[in-house]
Amino acid sequence: MTVYANSPTGPVDWERFLSQRAQKMKSSAIRELLKVTQQPEVISFAGGLPAPELFPVREIEEACNYLLRKEPKRALQYSTTEGHPPLREFLAATVAKYGIQHGPDNILITTGSQQALDLIGKVFIDPGTTILTAEPTYLGAIQAWRAYEAEFVTIPLDDHGMCVEQLEETIKEKKPCFIYVLPNFHNPAGTTLPEYRRKHLVKIARKYDLIIVEDDPYGALRYEDDDITPISVMAPERTLYLGTFSKTLTPGLRIGWIMGPMEIIQRLVRAKQGADLHTSTFDQMIANDIAQRGILKVHVRRLCNVYRQRRDTMLKALETHWPEDSSWTHPQGGLFLWARVPEPIDTAQLFPKAVEAKVAYVAGVHFFPYADGGHNAMRLNFSNSKPELIELGIQRLGGLLDAELEQTK
Amino acid sequence: MTVYANSPTGPVDWERFLSQRAQKMKSSAIRELLKVTQQPEVISFAGGLPAPELFPVREIEEACNYLLRKEPKRALQYSTTEGHPPLREFLAATVAKYGIQHGPDNILITTGSQQALDLIGKVFIDPGTTILTAEPTYLGAIQAWRAYEAEFVTIPLDDHGMCVEQLEETIKEKKPCFIYVLPNFHNPAGTTLPEYRRKHLVKIARKYDLIIVEDDPYGALRYEDDDITPISVMAPERTLYLGTFSKTLTPGLRIGWIMGPMEIIQRLVRAKQGADLHTSTFDQMIANDIAQRGILKVHVRRLCNVYRQRRDTMLKALETHWPEDSSWTHPQGGLFLWARVPEPIDTAQLFPKAVEAKVAYVAGVHFFPYADGGHNAMRLNFSNSKPELIELGIQRLGGLLDAELEQTK
Repeated sequence: MTVYANSPTGPVDWERFLSQRAQKMKSSAIRELLKVTQQPEVISFAGGLPAPELFPVREIEEACNYLLRKEPKRALQYSTTEGHPPLREFLAATVAKYGIQHGPDNILITTGSQQALDLIGKVFIDPGTTILTAEPTYLGAIQAWRAYEAEFVTIPLDDHGMCVEQLEETIKEKKPCFIYVLPNFHNPAGTTLPEYRRKHLVKIARKYDLIIVEDDPYGALRYEDDDITPISVMAPERTLYLGTFSKTLTPGLRIGWIMGPMEIIQRLVRAKQGADLHTSTFDQMIANDIAQRGILKVHVRRLCNVYRQRRDTMLKALETHWPEDSSWTHPQGGLFLWARVPEPIDTAQLFPKAVEAKVAYVAGVHFFPYADGGHNAMRLNFSNSKPELIELGIQRLGGLLDAELEQTK
Repeated sequence: MTVYANSPTGPVDWERFLSQRAQKMKSSAIRELLKVTQQPEVISFAGGLPAPELFPVREIEEACNYLLRKEPKRALQYSTTEGHPPLREFLAATVAKYGIQHGPDNILITTGSQQALDLIGKVFIDPGTTILTAEPTYLGAIQAWRAYEAEFVTIPLDDHGMCVEQLEETIKEKKPCFIYVLPNFHNPAGTTLPEYRRKHLVKIARKYDLIIVEDDPYGALRYEDDDITPISVMAPERTLYLGTFSKTLTPGLRIGWIMGPMEIIQRLVRAKQGADLHTSTFDQMIANDIAQRGILKVHVRRLCNVYRQRRDTMLKALETHWPEDSSWTHPQGGLFLWARVPEPIDTAQLFPKAVEAKVAYVAGVHFFPYADGGHNAMRLNFSNSKPELIELGIQRLGGLLDAELEQTK
């Protein structure tokens, strides 16, 4: 308890001072729930964490030593809001290979991809502005945009991502400001939007002159088949592309980026000036050093090999240990799959029992903006646990599901 | 120019999608102008940069190596929004010495102090919300809060900081949400609010039940006399205290903090979840290591010795080289002083000539929220230039001022 040593007037009624948006802000259900699942004996499929044993620690140490000997005055000083120029050049050159014709001035470095979502909210969302998203959808985007008092309209998602066939009707009725889409290895669903659906999405966005926000944190982590053309290549004039090093390098450094038409990047730069001046110079230069030396590429290949095996272990364990009426997505990459359990079971209600049985997941309901779906679904992360624990954890969950089904008979 | 390779519909009219607040956001005049002054031959008193030759580079390198050997999985992983717990404990213990009775749970680590200003805007400011500040005032605060469509009411500042004697009248008339105050070594004015004025400010804030935002980036950089009791010690129940490592350690790491009553810290934590999830884990742990090993304390003492000398050099050079009718503040610490030139001279109009003469400053007008003052004033930074350059730069400015006065005769 805070001691108000010198306070004759007593505590302040802070509620009285809150902005309208602050009154509506909720704490992230997931971040709160992760605290529960961090007990060491719990096998957690709940978080979205990369495998820490794979962090390229030695290479990062080398980068630190190199930068602090070679350019300490630059690495530790204030820098420009736009981001470290060599890193922006590297990113522009990288995406050029995928056919994205953006230069360094089309790129803004952000403090993780979450800040990109926040700045987009700041620049586009007034109270009541409508955002179109598939559901389930990424919780961090909901949280960022709810803080600007956005409304959400949703269309369903099937095993091939957003059901874009329903876009036109929804747009006509709800008039959204932009379409939010996670085309590769969706969080939480693990689905990938096929090329024909991307093309349809672009066609509709053009017809109704809408912006597209393409969030692609996992794109580089593909475990099978070929890359699919990014939406920002199909419609560079209206797409903001969001990338991050959190999944390919390390999340602790907080480096993301937004790529898009220069006139809107400049608006986002202004918003970032007020938000945090610039992203950590040192972290940007570490990431740049790792990327420029070609280490990132090698590292991503290694991540793919390990994560592919973990995904396969989880898929096989689900097949072996889960009751017959369950189903799940088969992600081609990324960190997550989405599992549906037999109908009478409510995954949010099951959660405390799961933690008691030393296994954790995120209940599907948390990924629905208005908590009106996903009651018999859950998100399972496969990147953060070793194969033997994945096997054991899925077995534990299978046992729990069997017991529940037995009770409801 | 961006090539719209696949864009049959042509460029998008982005203006159409902008939020109300984005339409009002301006680029920071100072950040734009700093680009001009970064030519190597210009002696720049314009920025607010610490002296890069004093960065504790070797100590930071040691911290990196230690952390990456001892705790790499923690240092590079996602962490909690509230901030690295040992760092929050260190900060709580540090402020306890100054009489501030806040624990770690009263502290939120932010991505630089600028993010603290942004989160305060997010949590308190609705369109039209009024903020009370002295003028001139810190430009970054104006920029952060203007992004939430705040209005500003101002009271003057004299050689002892905010003229708090005028507070009550202004509050009665304008009903602000909070009072923004930079009590120590004000940016841009270099003034320090004496204890009697702090007490009066607290008395008035209590009488009208207002919040106080106490921004203290320079407090540790005191070159003479004793510390004055922080406002957050006098009124812990209603004060949000903002601190940063940008001036005492290095700005490139982007570590700041907000301290205050727990209920409002929790609201700010929610806002930060949506804004960037958390501040760089690695940067927080580096700062914590430097602080915990006692290096920061030694380093700050060294900074004070060097910056004191630079301040004294500037004060003496002003005395020697500037025309008789000019005046300036005598800062007891910090990075800046505020100089007033004889009346007919407009410092904004003089600026291009100064850059031509290879010396730069920031014109006073930029520190007035509505650009309606400071026309014959300028901010001069003394931390970023070595004494011989300070002497030379002030001499150049003196010559320019003499020439201007000669012309207007």
